[in-house]
Amino acid sequence: MMHVIGVDLGGTKTAAGVVAADGSVLFSEQIPTLNREGGNAILGATAALVARLLRRAAGEGIAVGRVGVGSAGVIDAASGTVVSATDSILGWAGTGLAAGLAERLGFPRDSVRAVNDVHAHALGEAWRGAAAGSSSSLMVAFGTGVGGSFVLDGSPVLGHRYVGGHVGHFASPYAYHEGKALPCVCGGSGHVEAIASGPAIHESFVRFGGSPDVPDTRAVFALALHGDAAAIKAIGAGAGAAGQALGGLVNILDPETVVVSGGLADAGDLWWKPMERAMRKELMGPLADIPVLRAALGNTAAIVGAAKLVLN
Amino acid sequence: MMHVIGVDLGGTKTAAGVVAADGSVLFSEQIPTLNREGGNAILGATAALVARLLRRAAGEGIAVGRVGVGSAGVIDAASGTVVSATDSILGWAGTGLAAGLAERLGFPRDSVRAVNDVHAHALGEAWRGAAAGSSSSLMVAFGTGVGGSFVLDGSPVLGHRYVGGHVGHFASPYAYHEGKALPCVCGGSGHVEAIASGPAIHESFVRFGGSPDVPDTRAVFALALHGDAAAIKAIGAGAGAAGQALGGLVNILDPETVVVSGGLADAGDLWWKPMERAMRKELMGPLADIPVLRAALGNTAAIVGAAKLVLN
Repeated sequence: MMHVIGVDLGGTKTAAGVVAADGSVLFSEQIPTLNREGGNAILGATAALVARLLRRAAGEGIAVGRVGVGSAGVIDAASGTVVSATDSILGWAGTGLAAGLAERLGFPRDSVRAVNDVHAHALGEAWRGAAAGSSSSLMVAFGTGVGGSFVLDGSPVLGHRYVGGHVGHFASPYAYHEGKALPCVCGGSGHVEAIASGPAIHESFVRFGGSPDVPDTRAVFALALHGDAAAIKAIGAGAGAAGQALGGLVNILDPETVVVSGGLADAGDLWWKPMERAMRKELMGPLADIPVLRAALGNTAAIVGAAKLVLN
Repeated sequence: MMHVIGVDLGGTKTAAGVVAADGSVLFSEQIPTLNREGGNAILGATAALVARLLRRAAGEGIAVGRVGVGSAGVIDAASGTVVSATDSILGWAGTGLAAGLAERLGFPRDSVRAVNDVHAHALGEAWRGAAAGSSSSLMVAFGTGVGGSFVLDGSPVLGHRYVGGHVGHFASPYAYHEGKALPCVCGGSGHVEAIASGPAIHESFVRFGGSPDVPDTRAVFALALHGDAAAIKAIGAGAGAAGQALGGLVNILDPETVVVSGGLADAGDLWWKPMERAMRKELMGPLADIPVLRAALGNTAAIVGAAKLVLN
């Protein structure tokens, strides 16, 4: 049976696992991403991580010949290079990701492929996770940021410039305060991410009169469970914006299944219920019963999806 | 050389033409759609229209063996049936469009295919119109309604329930008045179509203090050219909402080319300039230079796109 390695290269950590042809992860390891040290350092550390997995696999008699990578940043999937990236990984833009890994591993160039990590995540959920069996699915992750991917007939729709899936960056009526559009990390304003991301919920809490000493979004959720008005309002705005955005995306794309992922999707009914209510309010009639499912693969989704890139 | 017939079946008129394999329309005819008389009457009149074209083609020595239809309503493209339709065509929902035409024409069942007319329109522009040569394009029409289609590798993305492309039905910050979401024809509220369609611009004009005696959107544009403040404001809101929506869609889908169609796209710089400005303001960095083109095929776009359905 064929095995491959899937790599999930994020802004803070890089995880990789040996994945079987059926999508099961045999074993995996994780390292911090050297996000201040530039592309070469990251490639070196990632290749070393993959090499360790290869040795472990060889020790168990498992042959592995290919590597798929889901990476933070805009990734040119044809060439496997990093087109652009945020400052969360310094010096990542311009890196020849697939070629650099292949060279360091002594693998043929075409045995390594790479896509953006959100697309890998969605592909994993579409293949073996919450949307398994669906011919099309829309996955949206609400967490530190808001991103997504539309997987159609087994392939994520990457976009002509590999920028597709920036579903956090369209206008939201929720992303206004006293008539002014809230700033978005992308440089624009009034976007879904500016009100619906985890950090945005914390910012809303403070804007709604909550104490700036409350350290993070998790603490805002804890306060909401105890009835804190600003916390409830901030979570309601984030969840409402998330659901409204999802509903609009469903009207545009009509996927068979919707998968919701990210830290907020795991935060329980306090977020999920108003999110789903706002989503269903938006839907055109024939879409009313669309399944909206919580992501099922957890941390391994992008590893599994990255593996799928090289399993065909 | 192979020829086919393309049919554009809309709420008020039905046009059909004989189309060559290169997409050129040899000749075409048009009839009113019998939009109060039910599915059978429409099928009969459409079959008669097609039969006339077949005779005319035969008279010129041209053999035609297939028919493609772009029709108003949600069309199940696999079976060629009308899933649902608005009251603009009474009794259209449930009609076996492709099978009914094939039967009336004495054609084999699989020689007639149908999709929604907006998808046919976009496919025509993608194949032989403004987006010819692009591997992917997003076409959005701003007119009586707002609809669109994302054409990827030569095929419109129809959606799992054939509802994809309802790009007028997602939330717009522009679609609010005094804090209240404007009603949308889909039954929802606060949607792009509720502020950016042609009729919505007329409604905004009246809401902004314009005279209710001004008969239509065309008259609002005429007033704007003469400096009328309510008219300028209404067009600015519609164009701003249209552009903001388009920009968000581009961030989500990253098409190679954007095509803008419909009556408002033909209304000149008064609408186009603020539309494009609002659109470009939304775009993520790598999308900044995306081409935004006016539709090129005019009334024949859906005929050409419908023909393409049966030319492969």
